[in-house]
Amino acid sequence: MKPCNLPIGIFDSGLGGLTVVKAVREMMPGEDIVYLGDTARLPYGTKSKEQIKNFSLNNVRFLLSKGVKAIVIACNSSSANAYSIIKRSINIPVADVITPAVKSVCCGGKGKKILVLGTSATINSGAYEKKIKKSCGNFIVYSKSCPLFVPIVEEGELNSEITELIVKKYLSDYARRGITDILLGCTHYPLLAGAIKKVMPNADIVDSGKSTASALRSILYGKGLSAKPENCGKLAVYLTDFSPNFKMLAERFLGYKVGRIRKVNL
Amino acid sequence: MKPCNLPIGIFDSGLGGLTVVKAVREMMPGEDIVYLGDTARLPYGTKSKEQIKNFSLNNVRFLLSKGVKAIVIACNSSSANAYSIIKRSINIPVADVITPAVKSVCCGGKGKKILVLGTSATINSGAYEKKIKKSCGNFIVYSKSCPLFVPIVEEGELNSEITELIVKKYLSDYARRGITDILLGCTHYPLLAGAIKKVMPNADIVDSGKSTASALRSILYGKGLSAKPENCGKLAVYLTDFSPNFKMLAERFLGYKVGRIRKVNL
Repeated sequence: MKPCNLPIGIFDSGLGGLTVVKAVREMMPGEDIVYLGDTARLPYGTKSKEQIKNFSLNNVRFLLSKGVKAIVIACNSSSANAYSIIKRSINIPVADVITPAVKSVCCGGKGKKILVLGTSATINSGAYEKKIKKSCGNFIVYSKSCPLFVPIVEEGELNSEITELIVKKYLSDYARRGITDILLGCTHYPLLAGAIKKVMPNADIVDSGKSTASALRSILYGKGLSAKPENCGKLAVYLTDFSPNFKMLAERFLGYKVGRIRKVNL
Repeated sequence: MKPCNLPIGIFDSGLGGLTVVKAVREMMPGEDIVYLGDTARLPYGTKSKEQIKNFSLNNVRFLLSKGVKAIVIACNSSSANAYSIIKRSINIPVADVITPAVKSVCCGGKGKKILVLGTSATINSGAYEKKIKKSCGNFIVYSKSCPLFVPIVEEGELNSEITELIVKKYLSDYARRGITDILLGCTHYPLLAGAIKKVMPNADIVDSGKSTASALRSILYGKGLSAKPENCGKLAVYLTDFSPNFKMLAERFLGYKVGRIRKVNL
């Protein structure tokens, strides 16, 4: 097979990374994708840095065994804690979800006030905040961990009174601070974009999945690794454990039906 | 050391099992306890039966290495899926959290209508329902998984509008069914007892931690393994990962300050 027609390897701690897959497929429908969700060890958001690194390297090894041409770390906890070590360990292109989202939010505009939302691990790592300050030091950056966002998305509470109260719990302190951009620093959060927009109607929402897809397209194009137009864009999904409702959840994140999902032991 | 003064080994997938430790210490203050929280691999509630068995046997091996005289499976997912295999694998007494709670709820009363609450794994396993029907077949049993209860307890939402809405989300269908007993089939849930009582004021709440402590006392007494009265009841806490806020959470479940918490790799 021509190197350009090899699949892209995308991993996450669970099924949320399928929002990144969705964005990649919308932008590059011809690309084959191998997705790995490490459902046996999720969530990474509550694990230590050391554990997240080990798990991430495990995932990368699996994807390499599938002959991928590039790796996308579609997990914020992993991007925040394991991007450097993955980049040092392999010699194919690697994209994380943080760098592209930071580029998007820093692009254009003056005097922005940015609010980064994420899991405890992502927010505690300060990864977004540090990168934004480095890229555009004159912007004001707030960050807030929202530990109930992932559970309510997985429970399908996307637009109810519960959703609204929980969004307000985390965001109401910021409602009068003139936030211009809200950066969704977790792959589950795009499903709450509507509910967030209701509480903060004046802020632009930056979805790291879309930014990542865009960055990946540039990387592949730059290296001559974009799939040929005739390629049909197959998706293979592997999970390390079949948790309850995994298929229903996968389809919620992808936005369409998913075929056979395979189980793999790492 | 006399066998009766050896510690009791208690494990859970995380910190919730400390509500069982609390109940055991209140009932038997002289018992030494070694607690293991498998925080690196939590939650078990979303894992497959096979994974839960493997993790549980790992935990038991660690506790045996600490010379425990009995094992308490302070995890409902593990009790539902791994009790038999643990019991077959070792030759010291084993208590789970399900059997004693079922005994409590089946004891006394006629024509009870019991509602079992738990994580998806516990409810899907049908463990409580089967055992209740076997012990007291004439009782009506309902069961309901409440996936948001663990996250809201960990987030400290024990008595807010969010708590009330989420409790109602799961329980309002049962409000007019004349439920007599609510069995809390998850070690996190005792912290929501007040909020549950508000929505279902006429039902008795059965806390599996207290029932388990009581069952354990009988087992130890029956085998001459109760600690001597002069024993001072030390608690050693081990976790497989230091997740954010682990100390604060441990103290929330225990209800008092905890000393040094040690990390262990299994």
